[in-house]
Amino acid sequence: MTTLDVPSGRAARIATPAPDDPRLARLSLNQRTVAGWSLREAIDGSVSAGLGAIGVWREPVAQVGLETAARWLRDSGLRVSSLCRGGFFTAPDPADRRAAHDENLRAIEEAAALGAPTLVLVPGGLPVGSRDLAGARARATEAVSLLAPVARQHGVVLGIEPMNPLFAADRGVVSTLAQALDMAELFCADEVGVVVDTFHLWWEPDVAAQLARAGAGKRIVSYQISDWITPLPADALLSRGMMGDGHIDFAAFTRAVSVAGYAGDVEVEIFNAEVWAAAGSEVVATMARRYCDLVQPWL
Amino acid sequence: MTTLDVPSGRAARIATPAPDDPRLARLSLNQRTVAGWSLREAIDGSVSAGLGAIGVWREPVAQVGLETAARWLRDSGLRVSSLCRGGFFTAPDPADRRAAHDENLRAIEEAAALGAPTLVLVPGGLPVGSRDLAGARARATEAVSLLAPVARQHGVVLGIEPMNPLFAADRGVVSTLAQALDMAELFCADEVGVVVDTFHLWWEPDVAAQLARAGAGKRIVSYQISDWITPLPADALLSRGMMGDGHIDFAAFTRAVSVAGYAGDVEVEIFNAEVWAAAGSEVVATMARRYCDLVQPWL
Repeated sequence: MTTLDVPSGRAARIATPAPDDPRLARLSLNQRTVAGWSLREAIDGSVSAGLGAIGVWREPVAQVGLETAARWLRDSGLRVSSLCRGGFFTAPDPADRRAAHDENLRAIEEAAALGAPTLVLVPGGLPVGSRDLAGARARATEAVSLLAPVARQHGVVLGIEPMNPLFAADRGVVSTLAQALDMAELFCADEVGVVVDTFHLWWEPDVAAQLARAGAGKRIVSYQISDWITPLPADALLSRGMMGDGHIDFAAFTRAVSVAGYAGDVEVEIFNAEVWAAAGSEVVATMARRYCDLVQPWL
Repeated sequence: MTTLDVPSGRAARIATPAPDDPRLARLSLNQRTVAGWSLREAIDGSVSAGLGAIGVWREPVAQVGLETAARWLRDSGLRVSSLCRGGFFTAPDPADRRAAHDENLRAIEEAAALGAPTLVLVPGGLPVGSRDLAGARARATEAVSLLAPVARQHGVVLGIEPMNPLFAADRGVVSTLAQALDMAELFCADEVGVVVDTFHLWWEPDVAAQLARAGAGKRIVSYQISDWITPLPADALLSRGMMGDGHIDFAAFTRAVSVAGYAGDVEVEIFNAEVWAAAGSEVVATMARRYCDLVQPWL
């Protein structure tokens, strides 16, 4: 049985939970946490570890074909906690906007086919050469408005993901949970919700109040976890850490998510070169231990 | 006369403003923008370029002695737009807190001696091993409350600097202008204000409204400018760019600062390895051009 010292100031050594451990029921592996695994490997790895769910990405699904992926996932017994990802709809050019819209329509159809309750939307950054952040944000809202009725028809809730301001220029112009909720609340809760990611939101001054607001409106469609580590790695995109390796208080954050009424899966999504270099089964074992130690008790 | 292409989508080549150009009256060189210059060189460089003010740091002042620095600055005819920096008062240990308090008392005295209207406060990050962000923020407010009456006695306004959430863990736990104002408004406007820095705040969803709030309360004690560039340099601390090299809309931001009633100096503060490697006089010339092109017209 693999063990490690949990870097949370305690001397305890935590055992890897057995696959039948009921604490794993809500734990989900976001595929990108084990970037080296194919969809087949990620499904098998999640099942072997006893996880309740998996968060899948469009690209590895496309590699095996939508129908095959959907069958594999159905047969695995895993829930699909989310499909990553749609969005990237901040371009001003009408042809680009049309192309982004069409791509998002396909993503909604895929989410429905895979049984994913939500499609994660990464809004996109400023268009090349543009400094019009307000305009980009307005276009993101407009793009969501065109997708919302389609998502509803397919039984998929669009999940707007507010992103750490670190990414405001080049990846996600929606920067706070408050702002994401302002957008989502323009629509029905069965059309548009928000993705709550600890890495993106841990610093938000009134995040507990915003989580309560999100919960009251039944807007939390995904809870994703990873840690904020320092020093920030040279590639900011790969700066997420394993829970416990950084500065986020997962007890307080998770409690706020739970008190807000969220009862869904908890998806571990880590972009990190060191995590990617490790063996997939080790990564899943580590995330299961850290989850049981730092997150699950507060759900 | 040095010229360069201004990277703001226009073909115009902008001439370096002459030292008697009235547009430079409110422009201030923050010393750290030309990290290689001593205080003497920074004063001389600012005077030669025709700037109206200089923002000084405690360390180079200490190198020549407070009295000498104060005399040089008085004799130069430059305004001292700010003294950088106090703060770093998030430690929980009583002895550490006392030491930080005493250090800030000295910084207030220095600001008064140098004729700086404001002492810039960088709150500090999470204490080592701590994940209690709310606690660190509360201790920052408490520390300010102990300093405010002293600052007032010295005719120095404390300037709380909200910092990009990029730095929430390791440098500045106050993350938005809204949050900084919540803190500052606990005190009188002649005791505590806020430092408005484009790099830190450009992404804040309701920044225009918060600037209006800050202006209405006469809380803006410093306007600092630098750009947000991508890709983020490997060392996040050195990720500020020259105005025009990044994604910030200086026209919109500056207009909001100006409409809010701010009539003080505009301090260029850039931490960037490439800028630091360039000749000081070139850096000052470039910042003067960019300021006249991108910022000054909107004041």
